[in-house]
Amino acid sequence: MRIVSFRRPAGSATTVGWGVVVVPDGRAVDDGDPPGDAIVCDATRSGLRVPPDVTALLELPAHSRDAVLAEVHAVASAGQGPDEVFAALDELELLGPITRPRRNVFAVGANYRGHVEESAHSAAAPARPIFFTKASTTVTGPGPVPVDPALTERVDWEVELAVVLGDGGRYLSRAAAEAAVFGYTVANDLSARDQQHGRPEGQWFLGKSLDGFCPLGPWIVTRDQIDDPHRLGLSLTVNGVAKQNSTTADMVFDIPGLLVELSRFVTLLPGDVLLTGTPEGVGDARTPPEYLAPGDTVEAHVEGIGTLVTTIVAGGAA
Amino acid sequence: MRIVSFRRPAGSATTVGWGVVVVPDGRAVDDGDPPGDAIVCDATRSGLRVPPDVTALLELPAHSRDAVLAEVHAVASAGQGPDEVFAALDELELLGPITRPRRNVFAVGANYRGHVEESAHSAAAPARPIFFTKASTTVTGPGPVPVDPALTERVDWEVELAVVLGDGGRYLSRAAAEAAVFGYTVANDLSARDQQHGRPEGQWFLGKSLDGFCPLGPWIVTRDQIDDPHRLGLSLTVNGVAKQNSTTADMVFDIPGLLVELSRFVTLLPGDVLLTGTPEGVGDARTPPEYLAPGDTVEAHVEGIGTLVTTIVAGGAA
Repeated sequence: MRIVSFRRPAGSATTVGWGVVVVPDGRAVDDGDPPGDAIVCDATRSGLRVPPDVTALLELPAHSRDAVLAEVHAVASAGQGPDEVFAALDELELLGPITRPRRNVFAVGANYRGHVEESAHSAAAPARPIFFTKASTTVTGPGPVPVDPALTERVDWEVELAVVLGDGGRYLSRAAAEAAVFGYTVANDLSARDQQHGRPEGQWFLGKSLDGFCPLGPWIVTRDQIDDPHRLGLSLTVNGVAKQNSTTADMVFDIPGLLVELSRFVTLLPGDVLLTGTPEGVGDARTPPEYLAPGDTVEAHVEGIGTLVTTIVAGGAA
Repeated sequence: MRIVSFRRPAGSATTVGWGVVVVPDGRAVDDGDPPGDAIVCDATRSGLRVPPDVTALLELPAHSRDAVLAEVHAVASAGQGPDEVFAALDELELLGPITRPRRNVFAVGANYRGHVEESAHSAAAPARPIFFTKASTTVTGPGPVPVDPALTERVDWEVELAVVLGDGGRYLSRAAAEAAVFGYTVANDLSARDQQHGRPEGQWFLGKSLDGFCPLGPWIVTRDQIDDPHRLGLSLTVNGVAKQNSTTADMVFDIPGLLVELSRFVTLLPGDVLLTGTPEGVGDARTPPEYLAPGDTVEAHVEGIGTLVTTIVAGGAA
């Protein structure tokens, strides 16, 4: 199942909803991205009693969540429902699939062997995962990310597989960690490299926490759709030119390993999002270094999940 | 006004509420801590229409928030209300005044001149603030903090003045930053120094994000009660022995300066909490180093705000 959050024009007002993507005629989904004529079954207009957003959905006990999703899936499969329950995917303004993050996004640095090798900051893969966070206000969907040129001139890209948790807990076993995963989405872990490296003590938090610097989407693909999350190609282009191209098999610490380690310290919560690291090919490690500028289009792709398109636009203080 | 959150026994069940502290007979509050016979006016049992918790209170528009607080204050001052609206402060189990943090706690490192001097990691005060975060699940109230000896043997204390925001925004001016402050509380920014320093890239996030590692309280003192937040004594004792004793005048970056800088990057939100740094006297910088162990009692005090008592207890995986 593909779960989307969106802002849907309704007369002059706009409302936020969530739903599932329906592929017409039972056609296969090509490498994660549904065909252009795919439609969305809007759970919030289905007449069913559903949580108002994906965070609330994830906060339900697993059996209630599964029941809600099964009901929505039934409406979607039947292709019949109340007026306006179906909408063309192309016509919706997609938001980050988690529209109301309940806390900062967890992220991990130096978690691909290829990226460790290209980075100056460390010669060898870390012995233990390097966790940091991105402010909750970094989360956005596909579309524009405003960048303030007074704040950074070195915006960099990082395609990542993002994990969305349906269950939480502390001291998770590997089996519990695998079961805690609700689904996956694509992330672009944007960084202001001049702020990240130019400030004392390596400001990973601040340099990666500018508003909008965590595009997520375009949807959450539920765990059952992905045979092995550690055998997925992931790639990124800037204005159509390939910049990153690797596989999640190159992770230093795998997904259960990251969750087991994080949950030794922190009680994980339903709705938590973990970015699992980026492979080689970031702009900052290139010779000469390359950064994003207003007008650039970044396409981040993870095999079987989809393509997240971000455009950089000029922003700043009014 | 002093605002508390608490778990209140009610028959066999327990419920979470919030309210304001009432000092009997109009007596003065001595250095932040009300007298032992102080009572609490429980807003959630006042019969008034009030938000369910302090986060929801802070999320109200300022004029609505002020109106709610004025109504609660009127009930408190009158000393009359529905049954059970008043309770002895001593008999309530106080929680962190923010019981439902809407995201990670913001914190700043190396922000007291005396602490910079005692620390090995930096010879001079930083040119710009060093921001990091503590997971939302670190927040707790006065009382026990379980520590897993398998995870850390080097738990350290840090008394801090914590700022609670009533308004948010980006690109705050100094005046807007001052006005955004709703009130103040006391924090003990606990750290697992072995995890913080023993992991690559300086794991400030992870080493400071263990469950319960951000005791806050015992209450929020509203901004109008504090003449100058940059002239407050702050001190900490371990088992009655003085360990930290300084003044907020020793901050490298003052409170509006921190908020102005942070809000250049991150849109701040009502309910956000910012820890403003600790003065000299932490355990890790002592010769020989000193750490906390189960059975230890830590009292963190900020002048005019109050005393936050934390006890360390043994914990760990079941």
